[in-house]
Amino acid sequence: MSEAIRSVAVIRVRGDARVAESDRTAIEEPLEVRLHDQPFAVIMRTPGADRELAAGFLLAERIIAGADELGTIAHCRDPGADHPENVVNVTLTNGSAAAIDRLLAGRRQVTTSSSCGMCGRRTIESLAATAPAIDAAWHVPSSLITSLPERLRARQTVFDETGGLHAAGLFTRDGSLVDIAEDVGRHNAVDKIIGRMLMREALPLSDHVLGVSGRTSFEIVQKAIVAGIPIVAAVSAPSSLAIELAQEFGVTLVGFVRGDSFNIYAHAARIDG
Amino acid sequence: MSEAIRSVAVIRVRGDARVAESDRTAIEEPLEVRLHDQPFAVIMRTPGADRELAAGFLLAERIIAGADELGTIAHCRDPGADHPENVVNVTLTNGSAAAIDRLLAGRRQVTTSSSCGMCGRRTIESLAATAPAIDAAWHVPSSLITSLPERLRARQTVFDETGGLHAAGLFTRDGSLVDIAEDVGRHNAVDKIIGRMLMREALPLSDHVLGVSGRTSFEIVQKAIVAGIPIVAAVSAPSSLAIELAQEFGVTLVGFVRGDSFNIYAHAARIDG
Repeated sequence: MSEAIRSVAVIRVRGDARVAESDRTAIEEPLEVRLHDQPFAVIMRTPGADRELAAGFLLAERIIAGADELGTIAHCRDPGADHPENVVNVTLTNGSAAAIDRLLAGRRQVTTSSSCGMCGRRTIESLAATAPAIDAAWHVPSSLITSLPERLRARQTVFDETGGLHAAGLFTRDGSLVDIAEDVGRHNAVDKIIGRMLMREALPLSDHVLGVSGRTSFEIVQKAIVAGIPIVAAVSAPSSLAIELAQEFGVTLVGFVRGDSFNIYAHAARIDG
Repeated sequence: MSEAIRSVAVIRVRGDARVAESDRTAIEEPLEVRLHDQPFAVIMRTPGADRELAAGFLLAERIIAGADELGTIAHCRDPGADHPENVVNVTLTNGSAAAIDRLLAGRRQVTTSSSCGMCGRRTIESLAATAPAIDAAWHVPSSLITSLPERLRARQTVFDETGGLHAAGLFTRDGSLVDIAEDVGRHNAVDKIIGRMLMREALPLSDHVLGVSGRTSFEIVQKAIVAGIPIVAAVSAPSSLAIELAQEFGVTLVGFVRGDSFNIYAHAARIDG
C-alpha cells in the first residue's frame, strides 16, 4: 500500500443495510519544517516527497530565491524525536545566525489560515488540555444524515453560480438548519458558523450537527471539538488524521453522504442502525 | 450580486467554438486579523461574516476559550488604510500588553500551509519585487489543454482509491507528463512538484504547463509565478484573486477543463483558437 494511504475501519450504511468493512483513506500528517534546527512552519500534508515539499514551500514563501540558496534538506535524525519522519531540517547557504533570526521573526506576519501543532501526537495532546472529549448521548436516525446535503444545497446560493465555494451548515439534532456559511476555504466556512454562535454566547454546541460540502481534514474536526459539536457529516472523504482525532475526542464522523448512503468512521452509536 | 461573487471576463472554449462572455467567480481576498491593533494572522477568505470568521478562528487557535474573553471585534476604521474592509481588529478582555506580546511571539510555531501578504494589493506588489512577470511567447493547441485531466488521472493512483487527495501535474508544452504529486492539500501537491524541479536546478519552468485537479486559489497561481510557469489549467473554478494575479503576472489561467471544453480567464493568446 502506498505511504499516502491507510486502511481504516468503517461502517457502510446503504439504505437500511449496515456493514462493517475496511476502507482506504488518504493520510494527513503534520510536517514540521525547521530552518537550521529551529521550528519555522508546520504543514499538514500527505507523507511522501517531504524534502521536495519543504523546498517548494520555502521557494513560494520567498525564503529562498533559487537552488543555489539551498544547503541541505534532510529528515530529522534525532532518535529521541517523537516522529522524526514528520520533521525536515533545512540549511541555507546564506544562513547566518542573524539572517535565520530575522526570517523567524518575520514569520509573525505571514501566518495564514488553519491551526495545527508540531506533530499529530503533540497536537492531539495539547488539544486535550483545553477541550474535553464529547460525550453527548443522543442519537439521530440515518435519514437525518442523508437529508443534510440537500438541505445545505437548498440554502447554498453562491455555489451553484460559481462552483468555487465550500459550504458548511449547522443543524440542530432534529435537522433544522441554524446557520450556513460559504467561503473559498472550507475551514473558513466552519469558523464563520462557530464564530457567530460564539458571539451569541451559544457555545458549546452540544445539540448540533455540522455538515460540510467537501472533504474533512484534521482542522475541521478540531474546530468541531473546540465548539463541542458531537456529529460531523461531510459529502466527501475524511483524512486519516480527521478520523483519529474524531475517535479520540468522541466525535461521530460521517463521510461520503450521497443519496441514501454514507460511511461512519468514528462513534457510530449516535446514528440509529 | 452577493458580496461573495464577482463578474469576470472569460473566453469559453467549446470544441472549436470560442465565445467571449462574462462569468461569475467566487471572491477570495485576504483578511488581516489584528489583536489590539497588532497584526496577528492573515486569512485568505471570501468576504462576508468577517467578524464571525475572526471570532471562530481565534477560538480554534485557542487564543480565546469562550465569549467572555472577547472584548470588541470591528473592521478597521483608519481612513488611511489601503483596504480597511479587509482588516478586523479584536480586543480581548484579558488582553494586557504583556499577554498580547506573548501571544504574538507564540505564533511563530503555529504557522501553517500557505502564503499571502497583508492584503491583495500589498501582496501583489511584494511579489512583483521578487518574481518577474511571465512573457513566454509560445502557444499550444486547445487539444493539449483538454487532454490534461485524463493524463493526470491516468497517473493519479491514490485518488481513485480514497477520493481524498488532490493531484498536480507538470507537463512540457508538447504535453508530456514530467511529474505528478498527490496530497490532501492542493497547494502541497504543487509545492512538491516545484520543489523537486528546484532541487534538480531546473527552474524557471518557462516551457511548462501546470495542471491541477481542483480549484485554483491565489496561492496556486502565486506558486506558478515564482516558478515561472506560463500556463495553469484546472479542472474546477478559479477564485477572483487567482484571476487578478494571473492577469497581472502574465500567466495563462484556464478553468473548468471538462471534455472538449474549458474557460480561459487570463492571457488567452497562449492557446490557439
